[in-house]
Amino acid sequence: MQTLLLNADDVDENARMDRVIDGVRGAFTAYERGNAKMPAKSYIDLPEYNGDFRSMPAYLDVRTEDTAEDDGWDAAGIKWVNVHTDNPADHDLPTVMGTMIYSDPETAFPLAILDGTTLTMKRTGAAAAVATDELAVPDATSLGIVGAGVQSYTQLEAISAVRDIEEVVVSDLDEERVADFINAFGDRFDVRAGSVTEAGHCDVLSTVTPVEDPIVGLDDVGGHTHINAMGADAAGKHELADDLLLDATVVIDDHEQCTHSGEINVPYAAGALTDDDIYGEIGEIVVGNRPGRTGAGFGSDSDGPDAAVDGVTVFDSTGLAIQDVAAARVVYEQANANDNGYPFDLLGLAE
Amino acid sequence: MQTLLLNADDVDENARMDRVIDGVRGAFTAYERGNAKMPAKSYIDLPEYNGDFRSMPAYLDVRTEDTAEDDGWDAAGIKWVNVHTDNPADHDLPTVMGTMIYSDPETAFPLAILDGTTLTMKRTGAAAAVATDELAVPDATSLGIVGAGVQSYTQLEAISAVRDIEEVVVSDLDEERVADFINAFGDRFDVRAGSVTEAGHCDVLSTVTPVEDPIVGLDDVGGHTHINAMGADAAGKHELADDLLLDATVVIDDHEQCTHSGEINVPYAAGALTDDDIYGEIGEIVVGNRPGRTGAGFGSDSDGPDAAVDGVTVFDSTGLAIQDVAAARVVYEQANANDNGYPFDLLGLAE
Repeated sequence: MQTLLLNADDVDENARMDRVIDGVRGAFTAYERGNAKMPAKSYIDLPEYNGDFRSMPAYLDVRTEDTAEDDGWDAAGIKWVNVHTDNPADHDLPTVMGTMIYSDPETAFPLAILDGTTLTMKRTGAAAAVATDELAVPDATSLGIVGAGVQSYTQLEAISAVRDIEEVVVSDLDEERVADFINAFGDRFDVRAGSVTEAGHCDVLSTVTPVEDPIVGLDDVGGHTHINAMGADAAGKHELADDLLLDATVVIDDHEQCTHSGEINVPYAAGALTDDDIYGEIGEIVVGNRPGRTGAGFGSDSDGPDAAVDGVTVFDSTGLAIQDVAAARVVYEQANANDNGYPFDLLGLAE
Repeated sequence: MQTLLLNADDVDENARMDRVIDGVRGAFTAYERGNAKMPAKSYIDLPEYNGDFRSMPAYLDVRTEDTAEDDGWDAAGIKWVNVHTDNPADHDLPTVMGTMIYSDPETAFPLAILDGTTLTMKRTGAAAAVATDELAVPDATSLGIVGAGVQSYTQLEAISAVRDIEEVVVSDLDEERVADFINAFGDRFDVRAGSVTEAGHCDVLSTVTPVEDPIVGLDDVGGHTHINAMGADAAGKHELADDLLLDATVVIDDHEQCTHSGEINVPYAAGALTDDDIYGEIGEIVVGNRPGRTGAGFGSDSDGPDAAVDGVTVFDSTGLAIQDVAAARVVYEQANANDNGYPFDLLGLAE
């Protein structure tokens, strides 16, 4: 019995996005139904290096009725990931690097060790897709992206799997990044550079920036824009102005994580946004315990289906350990089927 | 930049015991001095598989004055480990398997991924050696071992590095295990099979069994025996009888872990053993905040140096994440120096 090593390319090639989206949807479902075990992220803060480590262990059990696959499944693993902001300037390394151990829950054998950096991008895109599917207008055709860094690519890749995206507006102060993004997707979509306001007036908007202070205001978005707020990952960071958040129907991935380090953490800590301003968790919508955009009675300000269709929605995504486990499973199974990766007898149990 | 893969053999060959002992001593020191960061072990219990997963992240900073090496050092990492008791019978796999990610604290780059199973044995032996060095009589020459399983080998390997062990008495109901143990060490020590009482009358005794209920009583040990109680690893398990514990000077590795799942957890939960019966943590002794066996004023029942030399001591070892990180560092550096291991571009950053 060997452990399958899956490097960045292996993860990229085997993270079939339709399956990752189904897996992440299953993870949100399992979490909502109480079929997941996810201890709180634990942090090791290292101020002397301007960085931190985070450990994200999880187990989830997705029932047959909650997956597009033929049968239910369960999975376990841990992601060890960091945020070291000086890495690019001082060490020519990415700010965030991840390593994922994917384990058989029945025996705990480490089935695979994966590049957790690429995996994070995939499962983050997939989470935005699940939220977009529940919260964007059904006939959405345009996607705005604010921030053309590494996370932006999987936003388009994943969201275009749940809506017929034709037009993409990408906004970033770095022109080279914008050019790279257009170059990567220009043959499949009508992609152009634009302002934050132009991006925000698309049917769907994903914000994937590392900014501390809001760069998207109430006037920057359209009347029915669904916003995936992906960037905030630490206390003190947010991308959307308070009045925009307060006007919108806000859906979160996890109350503890979002109020601690998600898009809503700053106004929540200040008392400007309270639990009354949070519509619900994405898992509640996915399992049908709360209606999505097109459901009767959607949103706190709703007075009927039309009002709901016309409102702005926000998905506050912090990223859950169960998403990583669900995505790792897809990569592992796909890589096995494709004979990709490098089997390694880490534990000396092969013979 | 690549990640070094170190399998079971690599860990075994490169865990130079003298350096692992020094590293673990440094880890206890850093923890006592507040120079370590070690979030509580987090558990994922899976009763459906009769098992659990544990994540053990840690960072430690060992100062120059606290190591035998030329300079101080710091290190970080995480061990992902399990206890699945049905594994041997149902899956032909070990009950406990571990995977260790060893990271550069300055950048968080994963320097190495190691077999955590072999690593656990090494650092567990090293912890017993550090405690033996502080708590056994200085001229100890005999070692008893109760339980001849996988953990027993590193007990002898490590303890013989801090005391001139000549005679070894090994006690186990499984005769094959005893024969294997004697076969492994018979050329270096005077090793023989014996009863629990014979093992317990050695100068040092290590108990490394998975028993639920005590197998070593007060009459089973000598007047100055130092006992390393290594086996208990879960609530409800203990190896030593209450009267033995209450008669002895008890040193623990960590209050939270020991009272939760260490040797003392059962009498502690029952109120039979209280904080007043705990002499201190091993880190306090290592840094000199409390005397070891030969120090003036040692032990709660001590009325002078002779009484101390004559008393029974117990080290309750649960195993700390900082021990794993310290041991992983030794293996990584030694393997690099020896050109061992398999470099792998997990994160796609090599070029």
